Amino acid sequence: MQRALSVSRMTGNKSTFPDWYQAIVREADMAESSPVRGSMIIKPWGYGVWERIQQTMDRRIKEMGVDNAYFPLFIPLGFFAKEAEHVDGFAKEMAVVTHHRLKSIDGKLQPDPDAKLEEPLIVRPTSETIIGDAFSRWVKSYRDLPLKINQWANVVRWEMRTRLFLRTSEFLWQEGHTAHATREDALASTLLALEMYREFSENVLAMPVVAGEKPENERFPGADATYSIEAMMQDGKALQAGTSHYLGTSFSRAQNIRYQSDSGEMEFCHTSSWGTSTRMIGGVIMTHGDDDGLRLPPAIAPRQIVIVPMLRGKEEDAQVLAYAEGLVKDLNAQVALGEPIRALLDVKDQKSSDKRWNWVRRGAPVIVELGPRDAAGGQVSFMRRDRLRDGDKVKSQALARDEFVAEAPALLAEIQQSLFDEAKARLDANIRSDLTSFEQVAEYFGQLSDEDEETSAFKGWVRAPWSRPTGAELDKVVERLKALKLTLRNAPSQQPASFGPCVFTGAPGVEEILIGRSY
Amino acid sequence: MQRALSVSRMTGNKSTFPDWYQAIVREADMAESSPVRGSMIIKPWGYGVWERIQQTMDRRIKEMGVDNAYFPLFIPLGFFAKEAEHVDGFAKEMAVVTHHRLKSIDGKLQPDPDAKLEEPLIVRPTSETIIGDAFSRWVKSYRDLPLKINQWANVVRWEMRTRLFLRTSEFLWQEGHTAHATREDALASTLLALEMYREFSENVLAMPVVAGEKPENERFPGADATYSIEAMMQDGKALQAGTSHYLGTSFSRAQNIRYQSDSGEMEFCHTSSWGTSTRMIGGVIMTHGDDDGLRLPPAIAPRQIVIVPMLRGKEEDAQVLAYAEGLVKDLNAQVALGEPIRALLDVKDQKSSDKRWNWVRRGAPVIVELGPRDAAGGQVSFMRRDRLRDGDKVKSQALARDEFVAEAPALLAEIQQSLFDEAKARLDANIRSDLTSFEQVAEYFGQLSDEDEETSAFKGWVRAPWSRPTGAELDKVVERLKALKLTLRNAPSQQPASFGPCVFTGAPGVEEILIGRSY
Repeated sequence: MQRALSVSRMTGNKSTFPDWYQAIVREADMAESSPVRGSMIIKPWGYGVWERIQQTMDRRIKEMGVDNAYFPLFIPLGFFAKEAEHVDGFAKEMAVVTHHRLKSIDGKLQPDPDAKLEEPLIVRPTSETIIGDAFSRWVKSYRDLPLKINQWANVVRWEMRTRLFLRTSEFLWQEGHTAHATREDALASTLLALEMYREFSENVLAMPVVAGEKPENERFPGADATYSIEAMMQDGKALQAGTSHYLGTSFSRAQNIRYQSDSGEMEFCHTSSWGTSTRMIGGVIMTHGDDDGLRLPPAIAPRQIVIVPMLRGKEEDAQVLAYAEGLVKDLNAQVALGEPIRALLDVKDQKSSDKRWNWVRRGAPVIVELGPRDAAGGQVSFMRRDRLRDGDKVKSQALARDEFVAEAPALLAEIQQSLFDEAKARLDANIRSDLTSFEQVAEYFGQLSDEDEETSAFKGWVRAPWSRPTGAELDKVVERLKALKLTLRNAPSQQPASFGPCVFTGAPGVEEILIGRSY
Repeated sequence: MQRALSVSRMTGNKSTFPDWYQAIVREADMAESSPVRGSMIIKPWGYGVWERIQQTMDRRIKEMGVDNAYFPLFIPLGFFAKEAEHVDGFAKEMAVVTHHRLKSIDGKLQPDPDAKLEEPLIVRPTSETIIGDAFSRWVKSYRDLPLKINQWANVVRWEMRTRLFLRTSEFLWQEGHTAHATREDALASTLLALEMYREFSENVLAMPVVAGEKPENERFPGADATYSIEAMMQDGKALQAGTSHYLGTSFSRAQNIRYQSDSGEMEFCHTSSWGTSTRMIGGVIMTHGDDDGLRLPPAIAPRQIVIVPMLRGKEEDAQVLAYAEGLVKDLNAQVALGEPIRALLDVKDQKSSDKRWNWVRRGAPVIVELGPRDAAGGQVSFMRRDRLRDGDKVKSQALARDEFVAEAPALLAEIQQSLFDEAKARLDANIRSDLTSFEQVAEYFGQLSDEDEETSAFKGWVRAPWSRPTGAELDKVVERLKALKLTLRNAPSQQPASFGPCVFTGAPGVEEILIGRSY
């Protein structure tokens, strides 16, 4: 039996995982490279997944009492100079607009020298500075707090080595920005966003994650604390799928975001920001994909049940189509996972077996093939994409039509849960927590050459006690890990009651931290 | 009784209409100018309107069989050189990215000379070229046609004179792009989009429009035909609220979008594109606003029914709040205009009369004020924003609680219809169609000085027969009109059976065309 993809993800051949990833992105029609270096085209099926992510997360954001708004794409260069640490973090990778007109000179179109901007504009890499500037006008009194704003937007961070969804110069994201009267409120808001991301990732993307605080060296430029959710990909690497930052008063001081307190004093606000992006789609692919292509959790599948009619150019086709149309209509009237079911009848002019593999590669959760016998017998033959294979055999099941319609919501919920359970079992099985020294950690992960960087040899992560070193001591830890292509991921929110000695410094441990290779 | 806005829209003072518009945008909390010249910040209430527009139009776009996708923000300069007529139309107003890094030089951040792009990138003013390039890869055979794609995105057209929502350097929009095998199919698709815009504008925005074909001089750069919907603002000016273009084969020739026909020949596709933008929000303001602020049609109001509790810091407050919360819950369980009602309890720490005027200015369709007596008596006192005033008196009504909940869907539908009817009556009453010569047209509109340009003195439009001149003859017509600050809007789709002579050339008329001042 053929594999739907030309490349398998786990052959032991180190280069295959990235090749497999690329093959899925291409074969599942998710996205493609564009003629603009570093930018991608998100194709309809991939964008449909993003729309599902947007809709389901936006509901959660609104439930947090956060309002959506829209801020300018361009940020004046001078804004970056205000927050010194922030600009250091981003200075290397920004698109700079210097002219506002083109002109034909010597028969060649070029930037018009007479239309040079007095101050260059930066295409936003993130919007703390421009939103903070607005906050400084909007916040006057404690009555205006908390101020909670979210933006869905495109951002640009110039990247030299790009990979579709995972690292592109332009990407789509949401960025939440909040201002509060106190440290406690801002920190609570930061952690509320983190928890929303965890819940979203696990319940909507079916992607288990570990939520926790990033070490100092991995903080967002200018932040007092950065938290993340980390997901384990099928090659064992970590993908940071969302971050939430407590910014203290550093941005509000740089931008004069102040409020008059109850007692009449002018105080600086404490701010937070938090974001997730189209990168999550890369995470979904590397969490759920198999050697036949993508497997989409029903909650984000643009189409959850796809019906492929088996037509033979005969008069009985009309009967099959009528039967299929009735089925789609009844399915779409059902509610699964809190929303109307999204079923589709695929009437493209294409062979039905090609259609079937198309939907297998794209990861539609349930694929129904309907022929004249199904129509006559009032039954439905379907396959669950999450359990497509029994060894090399494609598994399909049959149910009476009305039973299938009635069971569809439970079926989709079960697929959603089953994908999560599979990924959760993999995550849990691949975090080692019995290593007690850096030497053991180094031995476990082993040395990787530059060429090996693409693989982590399926080692997963290590969870080990550490003493939370700072400054130069932390730099040394980071250096030692870097030589092994390892990074500190986060200190999980859930910690044990006591800790052994730090695997790096030997000092008493104060928390456990995750170590792994990463995207 | 106070007016909610500090400026009235129609005092006869020529400068008041633009001032009034600005006052609404500000006082209704819709948007504000940003520190980036020409770019706006869309505030939560304004963005909420845009979200409603997006959701309701996106449903229509999907029903047309169009898929959403996302294309790069940046377009290589070379792409513009391919379609000569197109670049002439846009060349004057594009943001140009020339560097991809900043550097601190002599203590000052500036574009890094070592990070100059080999080929400058243009921030998309529209995406025909970059989407056409993708189409050239995606279309191979007639089986791939029609190809119908839509994108929700930000675009940038450098503007010197900007006005919030109406003309800003960056704005949000949707752009539909389709490719077809034949002229007939592409033209049908162009007109289908136009009809969708008309229906959307009238049924969702409650903004009556005239749909028709733009004259040659007003065509989109590179198009074979451009159609528009034109709405009449309360100052009598026309606002072009949406356009749909039949592009013929000019873009597909420039970008090699070809398909293999049934018979094996390679043929160029016929393409179309169509767009609407945040400009529509400006249209809504200038169609429905009054001297108390904005009046929002319920279909796009982020909140349709706002409940202002009248609290006195007494123990009875708890009863009022509980009563109000129960009311919001029951209202939100009702369906109006095809969707769950969006009711809100305003619990901000603010005087209730300030709150009331806040919601009046913002244009919430129904405002409920609940006091202890309402709670005790089980009734609801409310005002319809569309009929706020009876002379200078604010009109409010009362209903028994359960009756109010039961009647709410009908009430919202009635407000939607009533706003449309009011605007439709104004449109119909202000199109003159009895003028038979250019001299009469000139006399009717009268001469305007440059300073008068902001007003059209409430003259509305003229609908007159013309001979559809082209080339130099058309240029002359356009010149003559320009001297009077007039433009040709469109030739309405609905035309009479016969025509008098052309008001410009005296030749036999072939259709009627709309003439007016415009935004």
